[in-house]
Amino acid sequence: MIGKKIHEFAKILWPINRSITGKGVRETLDLIKSHLSGMEVASIPSGTSVFDWKVPKEWSVNEAYIITPNGDKICDFNVNNLHLIGYSTSYEGELEYEELIDHLYTLPEQPNAIPYVTSYYKKRWGFCLKYEDYKNLKKGTYYIKIDTKLFDGVLNYGELILKGKSNKEIFISTYICHPSLANNELSGPTVVTYLAKWLTESKNLEYTYRIVFIPETIGSISYLSKNINHLQDNVFAGFNVSCIGDDRAFSYLPSRNGNTLSDEVAKHVLHHIDRNYKKYTWLDRGSDERQYCAPGVDLPIASIMRTKYGEYPEYHTSLDDLENVVTPEGLNGGYWAIRKALEAIEKNKKYRVTVLCEPQYGRRGLYPTLTTNKHDANVALMENIVSLCDGKKTLIDIAEILNNPIWELYETIDMLLSKSLIKQV
Amino acid sequence: MIGKKIHEFAKILWPINRSITGKGVRETLDLIKSHLSGMEVASIPSGTSVFDWKVPKEWSVNEAYIITPNGDKICDFNVNNLHLIGYSTSYEGELEYEELIDHLYTLPEQPNAIPYVTSYYKKRWGFCLKYEDYKNLKKGTYYIKIDTKLFDGVLNYGELILKGKSNKEIFISTYICHPSLANNELSGPTVVTYLAKWLTESKNLEYTYRIVFIPETIGSISYLSKNINHLQDNVFAGFNVSCIGDDRAFSYLPSRNGNTLSDEVAKHVLHHIDRNYKKYTWLDRGSDERQYCAPGVDLPIASIMRTKYGEYPEYHTSLDDLENVVTPEGLNGGYWAIRKALEAIEKNKKYRVTVLCEPQYGRRGLYPTLTTNKHDANVALMENIVSLCDGKKTLIDIAEILNNPIWELYETIDMLLSKSLIKQV
Amino acid sequence: MIGKKIHEFAKILWPINRSITGKGVRETLDLIKSHLSGMEVASIPSGTSVFDWKVPKEWSVNEAYIITPNGDKICDFNVNNLHLIGYSTSYEGELEYEELIDHLYTLPEQPNAIPYVTSYYKKRWGFCLKYEDYKNLKKGTYYIKIDTKLFDGVLNYGELILKGKSNKEIFISTYICHPSLANNELSGPTVVTYLAKWLTESKNLEYTYRIVFIPETIGSISYLSKNINHLQDNVFAGFNVSCIGDDRAFSYLPSRNGNTLSDEVAKHVLHHIDRNYKKYTWLDRGSDERQYCAPGVDLPIASIMRTKYGEYPEYHTSLDDLENVVTPEGLNGGYWAIRKALEAIEKNKKYRVTVLCEPQYGRRGLYPTLTTNKHDANVALMENIVSLCDGKKTLIDIAEILNNPIWELYETIDMLLSKSLIKQV
Repeated sequence: MIGKKIHEFAKILWPINRSITGKGVRETLDLIKSHLSGMEVASIPSGTSVFDWKVPKEWSVNEAYIITPNGDKICDFNVNNLHLIGYSTSYEGELEYEELIDHLYTLPEQPNAIPYVTSYYKKRWGFCLKYEDYKNLKKGTYYIKIDTKLFDGVLNYGELILKGKSNKEIFISTYICHPSLANNELSGPTVVTYLAKWLTESKNLEYTYRIVFIPETIGSISYLSKNINHLQDNVFAGFNVSCIGDDRAFSYLPSRNGNTLSDEVAKHVLHHIDRNYKKYTWLDRGSDERQYCAPGVDLPIASIMRTKYGEYPEYHTSLDDLENVVTPEGLNGGYWAIRKALEAIEKNKKYRVTVLCEPQYGRRGLYPTLTTNKHDANVALMENIVSLCDGKKTLIDIAEILNNPIWELYETIDMLLSKSLIKQV
Repeated sequence: MIGKKIHEFAKILWPINRSITGKGVRETLDLIKSHLSGMEVASIPSGTSVFDWKVPKEWSVNEAYIITPNGDKICDFNVNNLHLIGYSTSYEGELEYEELIDHLYTLPEQPNAIPYVTSYYKKRWGFCLKYEDYKNLKKGTYYIKIDTKLFDGVLNYGELILKGKSNKEIFISTYICHPSLANNELSGPTVVTYLAKWLTESKNLEYTYRIVFIPETIGSISYLSKNINHLQDNVFAGFNVSCIGDDRAFSYLPSRNGNTLSDEVAKHVLHHIDRNYKKYTWLDRGSDERQYCAPGVDLPIASIMRTKYGEYPEYHTSLDDLENVVTPEGLNGGYWAIRKALEAIEKNKKYRVTVLCEPQYGRRGLYPTLTTNKHDANVALMENIVSLCDGKKTLIDIAEILNNPIWELYETIDMLLSKSLIKQV
Repeated sequence: MIGKKIHEFAKILWPINRSITGKGVRETLDLIKSHLSGMEVASIPSGTSVFDWKVPKEWSVNEAYIITPNGDKICDFNVNNLHLIGYSTSYEGELEYEELIDHLYTLPEQPNAIPYVTSYYKKRWGFCLKYEDYKNLKKGTYYIKIDTKLFDGVLNYGELILKGKSNKEIFISTYICHPSLANNELSGPTVVTYLAKWLTESKNLEYTYRIVFIPETIGSISYLSKNINHLQDNVFAGFNVSCIGDDRAFSYLPSRNGNTLSDEVAKHVLHHIDRNYKKYTWLDRGSDERQYCAPGVDLPIASIMRTKYGEYPEYHTSLDDLENVVTPEGLNGGYWAIRKALEAIEKNKKYRVTVLCEPQYGRRGLYPTLTTNKHDANVALMENIVSLCDGKKTLIDIAEILNNPIWELYETIDMLLSKSLIKQV
């Protein structure tokens, strides 16, 4: 089960302190590159204008903790990188309890969860901790030490291009900007790494694949800013890969207009994997489809997910982990859902039958020689496929009419091609 | 509540004996003109050919009543103008009970209602009365006096044109041809009078408004006969306003093909005012949409109504009154439904976001600076609107996608325009 | 009831040993021609290439039976032609029970039914019998006698062309290739014979009718092979007529894309004959629509049936008879369903009202002169029709909007045409 390997890779990436910039992003990309040697790591300098935005300063953390009046060290960044709010500024000094608590973030409804909080675009400092720890804090004087740097550095992302027979591109994007969070972070880049490995090893790809590992929002905006014309000219399908690692549900979020090939494939594949898969709308969006499908950008990007961000209780807390939320089974199901979607796009051709009227299957050994009042299911599938190969319907169209998953047609299609009973249009 | 003022105006118009022609129409138009000084009153001579029809003779009533064998005066036109059938010819003489009853119209199933009966295009005389009075009539000799005139006169209607920035026109039509009837008469012209007052006072109308107060059927045919080319060239939306004053339901009747802007707006507005509003079909039509939407005329006219003609028990009887059927609340709801529809048409532009990818709302003060696992509803509305401003969707399209009433978007749209984040296409 | 005559004709055709070629086909065609003198009988030589197929050898049967060890004659072809498998080769000799049973076909689940079995394209011999007879066969030596011939002969079919005002053609196809089977054979050619008689007697056909009586599959392939260009250029509607004689259901099977005039008419007619009629899909096909609607052939052919082949227990067995399955009532219902469909196509014009706005019906005597709060149903139908005669809608479109069967509109349409209130576009 490939999900097991993906889960092991996720465990390696787990402790790294990722953010939208910084060392953690580079360490993560290096580990991905160890699987995907063709990947390039790009750097965009802080301050670069990217559409309506500017690439932020780079952030690094040396240490961050609080010493209680008792002398206990709490909220230690080295113990859990969620304790420090993302892009926290430096601070050192003593504060009374009453002053300190303005800088503490908790989740009273989930008392054993450390919340994940960031403040990328406004300077502030702060710590996140479990409410059950917070409520035990005593009055008194606390010593705070936050040693971080915000400096002119770079924003990094990884880009892997796999050439296929056609220059038309399939675009796959996933993000690498959250610290130790599992479903809403590591499931994405780990599944995409293993999909990219499979694609790298595949012979005869029909299409070119463009796979990016980027910081969410500012990363996709930066990438679009550099590549929008090329992407609009070449990309005909693609997926944003996020929240693909728990085993509780499958779900789909459409492109803005919901009518691209990516949407069609996603719905077809998910319907045949899980009749109860959850369909979200564009109004439920929240990841990089916000950029890829923005008006004027209009890339054909849909999302195939397991349980969507914002829809599970552990989301954006320390409970979104690799033990209870993301599992080998969950990753495995997510990997195969997206792989089946990519395979479907590769196979989604139009075919035309090469003879007028029905072929005489019998003389090709494809038909029972005795006609009674029964009919064989495989023969019926073959006849149905041939009867629908009119040069106008795609293989997905045909699969939809037959109410079969497209992958159950591949064998028959290959046989019919080999017998020259159909040909690709 | 504007419904109260409308109701008071309806009470003033109540006693006038309206018909498709005559003094009562002119008196009604004069009282409307006292609110709408810009309105013109037109006259078309009897006998004028209007498409397949001829403008009928003008009808005036001097007096009409019956004296019973006991000497009682009954069916007195001066007491209730419904007693005399519309366009009744003159008659004077004595008749036995058995002869008289051929000229009497009643409603045995509604014994306390005087029916409303007309005979515009065939000469006859007759009276209408309550069945409970009718059944008490004794045998004997009755004296009948009907003093009416049918003569070459004119058919009148009122026309008010309010110029907007565009020459494209919104057409509003209502009728003034029924005597003392409330929902199926006075609700229409009184609500339209107050809508016209509001439009007159509005600054910066986007579109030109053409508002007519006409006799039903022959009036709309006459008006079309004179104006069809202009209307077909300029009118892009409009409503026939009828039965807009009771407080029992909201309803919608489509244009012939049901796919005009007027239909779209009517359904959008009514859905958000009353989820249970009644949708009729073209086969349920019965007012001037029969003319405006006739094949070859094809104006984009739909109907927004409260309880539709023919669908309430008091319809076309003396029970359709200003006490039990039409109320200030009913008129108020009707006024606002149509006003919201007109406002929606005024606002129904296409907008395009001015930046590629999502705007950085934060530096414009439009976004929380701290990102956690919660999301603010107003921010979500703003983001959703921006994500749908692709220059192709109208504001109604966007409201429909959001499942919000369009009027809940106006404020955000105005704010986004003021920040130059969107612009009108 | 015309169903009675059709049933009598079916009884005459019943005993003939039809197959895809041979004397039985010719005898059947001769009996049809006795009703339809204009029909031509065509012959295509064995071995002729027809698209992917070759016309098979002609098959004739002299005698066929088995003598049991007791000396009893069983499986006698002269008693029931289903006993011999279609296209059985000759055989004469003695076989032990254990050898014989490899050549015997039965239906254990329907022990009193002789199955219908053919082997057109692979040489074999065999007999069919009731399972209740089969299980009583004793061990021992059997004498088998099958005297058949497979020789270079011809494949026959009948073709009747009835010229209408237009060269545009309506194509009707039915098959004549099964031996003594009733619903899945004789109902088709007998109903079509009586439809053709009606058409022959009809004055002023709008369209040309092309009616063929052919062997299923190889016959339709052969016919298409000779006529495809003409058919593609001229045929705009048509039906494959099969399984049209039992009284248990009505059903519909679409053309490949399901959107032709034939489909529209079939659904309209069946909906108004039987709200519970069964709708099949293209995947349920099994008769000559497989050829007529094959990709690249693409004729607009749908099927109106009673109980479809394969969907009733007697199908392809000796129980599919003229007593218990096909009845005069069943044939009658089938005849009228298709006749109503053909009449609908003849009448399915577009009409345009000749006046702008509503006509003044009153002066033409088409309207009550007194207007009250009631409305007459016939007047409403007339007004509705006129309001929909916009020159764009067909009469079926109008009937669908009115939710009336089209045949209930013919009288009003003819009246409106006679009054010049509408004209054909």
